[in-house]
Amino acid sequence: MRIGVLTSGGDCPGLNAVIRSVVHRGVADHGDEIIGFEDGWRGLLEGSHRPLTLDSVSGILAQGGTILGSTRVQPSHLRDGVARAKKYCEDLGLDGIIPIGGEGTLKAARLLSDGGLPIVGVPKTIDNDIACTDVTFGFDTAVSVATEALDRLKTTAESHQRVMVVELMGRHTGWIALHAGMAAGAHAIVVPERPFNIEKVTEVVRERFDRGKKFAIVVCAEGAKPEPDTMHWEAGTTDIYGHERFTGVATQLSRELEHRLGKEARPVILGHVQRGGTPTAYDRVLATRFGWHAVEAVHKGAFGHITALQGTDINLVPLADAVADLKTVPAERYAEAETVI
Amino acid sequence: MRIGVLTSGGDCPGLNAVIRSVVHRGVADHGDEIIGFEDGWRGLLEGSHRPLTLDSVSGILAQGGTILGSTRVQPSHLRDGVARAKKYCEDLGLDGIIPIGGEGTLKAARLLSDGGLPIVGVPKTIDNDIACTDVTFGFDTAVSVATEALDRLKTTAESHQRVMVVELMGRHTGWIALHAGMAAGAHAIVVPERPFNIEKVTEVVRERFDRGKKFAIVVCAEGAKPEPDTMHWEAGTTDIYGHERFTGVATQLSRELEHRLGKEARPVILGHVQRGGTPTAYDRVLATRFGWHAVEAVHKGAFGHITALQGTDINLVPLADAVADLKTVPAERYAEAETVI
Amino acid sequence: MRIGVLTSGGDCPGLNAVIRSVVHRGVADHGDEIIGFEDGWRGLLEGSHRPLTLDSVSGILAQGGTILGSTRVQPSHLRDGVARAKKYCEDLGLDGIIPIGGEGTLKAARLLSDGGLPIVGVPKTIDNDIACTDVTFGFDTAVSVATEALDRLKTTAESHQRVMVVELMGRHTGWIALHAGMAAGAHAIVVPERPFNIEKVTEVVRERFDRGKKFAIVVCAEGAKPEPDTMHWEAGTTDIYGHERFTGVATQLSRELEHRLGKEARPVILGHVQRGGTPTAYDRVLATRFGWHAVEAVHKGAFGHITALQGTDINLVPLADAVADLKTVPAERYAEAETVI
Amino acid sequence: MRIGVLTSGGDCPGLNAVIRSVVHRGVADHGDEIIGFEDGWRGLLEGSHRPLTLDSVSGILAQGGTILGSTRVQPSHLRDGVARAKKYCEDLGLDGIIPIGGEGTLKAARLLSDGGLPIVGVPKTIDNDIACTDVTFGFDTAVSVATEALDRLKTTAESHQRVMVVELMGRHTGWIALHAGMAAGAHAIVVPERPFNIEKVTEVVRERFDRGKKFAIVVCAEGAKPEPDTMHWEAGTTDIYGHERFTGVATQLSRELEHRLGKEARPVILGHVQRGGTPTAYDRVLATRFGWHAVEAVHKGAFGHITALQGTDINLVPLADAVADLKTVPAERYAEAETVI
Repeated sequence: MRIGVLTSGGDCPGLNAVIRSVVHRGVADHGDEIIGFEDGWRGLLEGSHRPLTLDSVSGILAQGGTILGSTRVQPSHLRDGVARAKKYCEDLGLDGIIPIGGEGTLKAARLLSDGGLPIVGVPKTIDNDIACTDVTFGFDTAVSVATEALDRLKTTAESHQRVMVVELMGRHTGWIALHAGMAAGAHAIVVPERPFNIEKVTEVVRERFDRGKKFAIVVCAEGAKPEPDTMHWEAGTTDIYGHERFTGVATQLSRELEHRLGKEARPVILGHVQRGGTPTAYDRVLATRFGWHAVEAVHKGAFGHITALQGTDINLVPLADAVADLKTVPAERYAEAETVI
Repeated sequence: MRIGVLTSGGDCPGLNAVIRSVVHRGVADHGDEIIGFEDGWRGLLEGSHRPLTLDSVSGILAQGGTILGSTRVQPSHLRDGVARAKKYCEDLGLDGIIPIGGEGTLKAARLLSDGGLPIVGVPKTIDNDIACTDVTFGFDTAVSVATEALDRLKTTAESHQRVMVVELMGRHTGWIALHAGMAAGAHAIVVPERPFNIEKVTEVVRERFDRGKKFAIVVCAEGAKPEPDTMHWEAGTTDIYGHERFTGVATQLSRELEHRLGKEARPVILGHVQRGGTPTAYDRVLATRFGWHAVEAVHKGAFGHITALQGTDINLVPLADAVADLKTVPAERYAEAETVI
Repeated sequence: MRIGVLTSGGDCPGLNAVIRSVVHRGVADHGDEIIGFEDGWRGLLEGSHRPLTLDSVSGILAQGGTILGSTRVQPSHLRDGVARAKKYCEDLGLDGIIPIGGEGTLKAARLLSDGGLPIVGVPKTIDNDIACTDVTFGFDTAVSVATEALDRLKTTAESHQRVMVVELMGRHTGWIALHAGMAAGAHAIVVPERPFNIEKVTEVVRERFDRGKKFAIVVCAEGAKPEPDTMHWEAGTTDIYGHERFTGVATQLSRELEHRLGKEARPVILGHVQRGGTPTAYDRVLATRFGWHAVEAVHKGAFGHITALQGTDINLVPLADAVADLKTVPAERYAEAETVI
Repeated sequence: MRIGVLTSGGDCPGLNAVIRSVVHRGVADHGDEIIGFEDGWRGLLEGSHRPLTLDSVSGILAQGGTILGSTRVQPSHLRDGVARAKKYCEDLGLDGIIPIGGEGTLKAARLLSDGGLPIVGVPKTIDNDIACTDVTFGFDTAVSVATEALDRLKTTAESHQRVMVVELMGRHTGWIALHAGMAAGAHAIVVPERPFNIEKVTEVVRERFDRGKKFAIVVCAEGAKPEPDTMHWEAGTTDIYGHERFTGVATQLSRELEHRLGKEARPVILGHVQRGGTPTAYDRVLATRFGWHAVEAVHKGAFGHITALQGTDINLVPLADAVADLKTVPAERYAEAETVI
């Protein structure tokens, strides 16, 4: 068989592990020919691709990034391109296409799948916000990197009697904040799913100091917001180049806590470090299994699905279900963390 | 309520995270009193314990080992002690006991539970061999440590044209070898569940060299054995102090491969490094959730169960089911690794 | 003998290792009594201290932070306190005082030493800006943390065709930026010691893109500034709480590069993660040696000195020399990095 | 100019960083042509080489191993080859050769240098046993890996009341054992430079247990030996394939301690994990500086030297001095570790 593979959207540790696994399973076990499209959907739409052999994926299992490159494509651009992509795919004689990507990519994949292309998607998101799969690769690495940073910040906060307000990735969901916060023993966690009550956050920190503790760690997902009209909250402004100048949640929350508590509070914004670099062993295993099962799905003709981890099994789930809703943190998970405000 | 907690068996990263979580959930949320038994079952049988307060678990979340200590107790010793343990537990006014341990510990827990003690077990094993739970804490850390070591060995093997035979933990099951082997891209993996064929292992390595590759990584679980009568295999002998002198699988397999291939092959035995130290973020989250749910189970009177991860949920599973069978690597998982012999 | 020890100034990985070493060498080898002053100079000025035994330093070697706490004290406060400190020190019967701290702390130490107190200082700075010692503990950890982050960012930048502008610690000197930038292979490094030429930075990045490279990593020390009147540069403004709102070098430089190059450029500000947490092996060895030699110096009566690493030896250097000048990056070191602008 | 570079001897983290630096400095700054000899001296003797461009060293800075390969060559083979190497080097029009290697390699380099070849050596050894340079790259990585393993083992030993005897690399010198032992707070360290007294080792451990401590960590360099006739010590035997069957120091010492103390003692042999994989930031900076200065030395015609770190400077030292004596651990360094037996 002839199978195309592409990576689309933001970086995510484990992309290369999926690519490698597709090539290993396809070429070595089935005798398939694997084609890699360059720079995500663009490669498919503009016909930019190259053959992927066992040699071309040698040594990439533990490497961050993606050897195929990745760009974001406007949905409108993609919508117009379905027919072209189909034609192009037929000309190439492709029996299957494996796009690896997040919510946006899978929506695009569904569009193409509905348009008749033989698609098996592999879900990717450091944010853990894709439904139908227990988790995807990238999330464990992001949580690990964030946890290591929190571990480091904790000793500093403790010795120097300080509140640290740490902003982690998560615009729409608080999964990374929840898991890293639990793993590092944060004293408060705020997430996009529920607007935080600044009084309660302040109270939690104040009580710690009252009990003789000398520091506190507050973890925020970048999309967290206060309840309306409970504290001064800045909208973004624009700088001289027209760039949005956005004051993040950690910066605003630390100022407010400093003001209310009369204690030094420092924002730390961890940023892109969370979404790059070598994947954890967990993510490498999951990514490898996803790649393997995606090739199997192509061979079985099970198109219009994504690979999904359910318990310890990799199952196939319809693309339509995967993109229906964002997976948010359920209420009962907050309770376990004790500290989500 | 008054709840006892103990840790038993070998070391496992995450034990302290469970203890901390039991104390946090019990003391801070329910107003419980938590008692820690020292050195595993011995503390319960001999009445050695101490109160665990929020202060006594401060700062232990990320620490390896167990603040309660742990020893192995002979089952016979325990069998004789059921009545005594029960009496002791009543004298202390305990509403629940949470033993944290592996297969042996959970068998002991079942004995005491059948004898009428209010037990909720928390499964612990770096080996991932406990049934009914997708995984337990400790395993992810063990796999991570092993994977990091394999990553390091790989570059050396490659530059120096060598076969590395790496022995990982796993006397009865090959989970660590399978996952670390997949994560690091091992070229052959041998596990206790299926005796290996030395011809096939040799062939896999020889083919690599024939294809121009300059090295190979063979991963063995410590309990792996060859098919009978296929290669010279040494039983343990005894040294002058009566200690068993055991020649491990990596040592024997590397000698045999060197002999058959005429290439330098080196054994590396990773050992106890895999079972100690700070837990990964994954294991800390799982351990914290287990502790939380164990306290809930005591409050609900759901005795005779263990906490278990199933998908993304923590459920309660009867102790009897948990200890019925060892969870071994199923055949279909070998295929995904491509390389299990 | 009776020896006091204190830690002062910002956090620095290795502080606990020095404290432990002072106690081990003093108590175990010399039979000394060691007293720990709490929260830096404040403990000495206000008489807040506690005995340090072998037990009180058990397990702290690898821990970040300082078990003694640390605060910053106003120099004027300290100047007024010399007589009081001296009286207090005599009342306690101290034969020596070992302050562990950075430039500010060592200046204070000199003040007290000149005032007649028996001081042996231990230099501490993640910034590597103390003269007379090849390096101090904390720097290697800061560089390691920064390098790991750069490694992670590099794969993301590469796959996503982006310029990453990474701000590392260093208000007055560019040592962390220089070393982490060399270690991670940054494409441009800007440091406080030489105002950068924005044209040249832009040119270096543009040339990379022209050569077909798809990304660039620019490392900035937080104190780096452009040559005057070469680009728009914002001074800090003040927000509604009177906090300075400071737009850092990475934020401003990334906007400017984006504007000039027409390529996506992202700022990453690593922040306090660099100055906390478990020290590297290198820093633990150096900190341990410093503590050991500080005790020896007290026993020899070599007051008014600091411990200093020179080559592989720990020597004593007069306090006056240590605080005379800040150690900046010499010109010839830039050449080795190839890329300092 | 035309410059050849080769790597020889065992693996050492940082080899690729030197190669990359030689190419960057040579090609980008001087317009040199760089040639890489394959598999160490063999490449020079047998004429196997390839051009090294900026592209061929892209991305290798943080990679373990060596892209040039490495083999060990018999000195006799090399001695016979001097004339041939010289001829070959002249045919290629080489202005300089930069061999990167350990003691054996530098001895070979001296042979060729004395024979008239234009050699500038770069010292490499994880063992830190090369004289005239404060340290070489590879050592810091080895110590870091060993220290991390010791950190992990410590919590296990503590919780399970056990003596851990950990064997680290170092056949002739105890540097890795000394530094990792100091960094991790080992309770006894034994090194090849001074035969250990088993009574004293036993006493140190016994005293710990007597003081109520529940564990001990003993670190041994692999070349450590007991004082003659103080304990049973096995010489190597030979197995059925003629391989030497060597019972290492950790295995023998743990048996003996178990016997003498009546406490469980476990050997851990860390092995090759110490000499492979990604180099620490420290080693990458040092390796990069060595490569840079080696190219400068060639351009200055300073042949017959090696690059050496002295304090914070990279100086040139005659090859003859570098190979005169092995650098062993001096007596005063033992005192600082408190625990060397």
